[in-house]
Amino acid sequence: MDRVKIIEVKQSVFANNDQRADQLRQELKQQGIFLLNLMSAPGSGKTTTLKRTVELLRDELKIGVMEADIDSDVDAKAMAEAGVKAIQLHTGGMCHLDADMTRQGLDVLAKEAKVELAILENVGNLVCPAEFDTGAVKNAAILSVPEGDDKPLKYPLMFQVCDVVLINKIDVAPYFDFDLEKCREYIRMRNPNARVIPICAKTGEGVELWAAWLREQVSAWRS
Amino acid sequence: MDRVKIIEVKQSVFANNDQRADQLRQELKQQGIFLLNLMSAPGSGKTTTLKRTVELLRDELKIGVMEADIDSDVDAKAMAEAGVKAIQLHTGGMCHLDADMTRQGLDVLAKEAKVELAILENVGNLVCPAEFDTGAVKNAAILSVPEGDDKPLKYPLMFQVCDVVLINKIDVAPYFDFDLEKCREYIRMRNPNARVIPICAKTGEGVELWAAWLREQVSAWRS
Repeated sequence: MDRVKIIEVKQSVFANNDQRADQLRQELKQQGIFLLNLMSAPGSGKTTTLKRTVELLRDELKIGVMEADIDSDVDAKAMAEAGVKAIQLHTGGMCHLDADMTRQGLDVLAKEAKVELAILENVGNLVCPAEFDTGAVKNAAILSVPEGDDKPLKYPLMFQVCDVVLINKIDVAPYFDFDLEKCREYIRMRNPNARVIPICAKTGEGVELWAAWLREQVSAWRS
Repeated sequence: MDRVKIIEVKQSVFANNDQRADQLRQELKQQGIFLLNLMSAPGSGKTTTLKRTVELLRDELKIGVMEADIDSDVDAKAMAEAGVKAIQLHTGGMCHLDADMTRQGLDVLAKEAKVELAILENVGNLVCPAEFDTGAVKNAAILSVPEGDDKPLKYPLMFQVCDVVLINKIDVAPYFDFDLEKCREYIRMRNPNARVIPICAKTGEGVELWAAWLREQVSAWRS
């Protein structure tokens, strides 16, 4: 196994993040690269979900993963072990990535491999990452059953900016007071257009649906 | 039930947060008020743990709770229903509280009731709240079993600044790959002095131990 590359991304000096994110998106469009920004609270299952996603899509798409983390390289190692090109972005304590930090990662990823689907696993945090457009084509959030069905009420912006919400760990639903219909309703209140897909990344349940959604988005973007 | 008071805390204009936090702590010492800062990721069980804590300590201590949240007042309502003086601090999108925002909350709380134990439920976030001294006498973090035993590796600062870590939701441990001993070891790596207490806030298991720890800290501070 190759050693995982660790990039210390520098905090952006640019104030106009929205503009720079739009510019990055335009460049990605020209290059035929689809960038997905995956966000969630700590421990919701981003890495496990990504491993499943890569298993389902790697035969049809060239995938590269950027694992953002404050300090560790636990996730990039896990992804590299799953056989996908993965780099680690160290934010040096920063709680989110902006468009320019994402670009720094994409530049390194591009040198390592030709990529059609780039996935950014953002810092585990339901607050700050939602405030910064990374330049991604689509935003996905994971909410896991043990966190509770009321999270869309408490972290409104995250659910507003998402194109799709994966409800993960549905295998343990019997052990928690989690009302899926109520949760769907709260998400709809924040964002009537967000697709909601219940999954269990551990067993693979529902992940086919999510992969199909992603496949469709990538195909539309690259056509 | 009284209506819950909602305070829109203003972002601090002061750069010297550490100094202002120390000053707040000194004032709290003079007033005989113990301030606990409770932090965790979203959905780890801060509010449920607080409800249990209040049940155990309210006959011996005058308790006031400040629920920090970006936008909702779900938690302050829950605390008020549990029969404790509770106010809601709206951070207006901010991902943490600093000493001055905490002071704004304490000032309002002091007008509502005489308090001996003030508890700040910080914004659900394992990153940013760890970076700002709120002026609290002690910091507590909750890590819940479904989040995984590796979180001290990935969110180092949170575990460095904590005096006590509650491992919550131990009732569901059989359904997750969570190694309590490994987790204790990771916490020790970050902070050899942190006390670790496994609890289940839902059933009350272990909460007596936590309440005993807190009782002791309050008593030492106020003597």
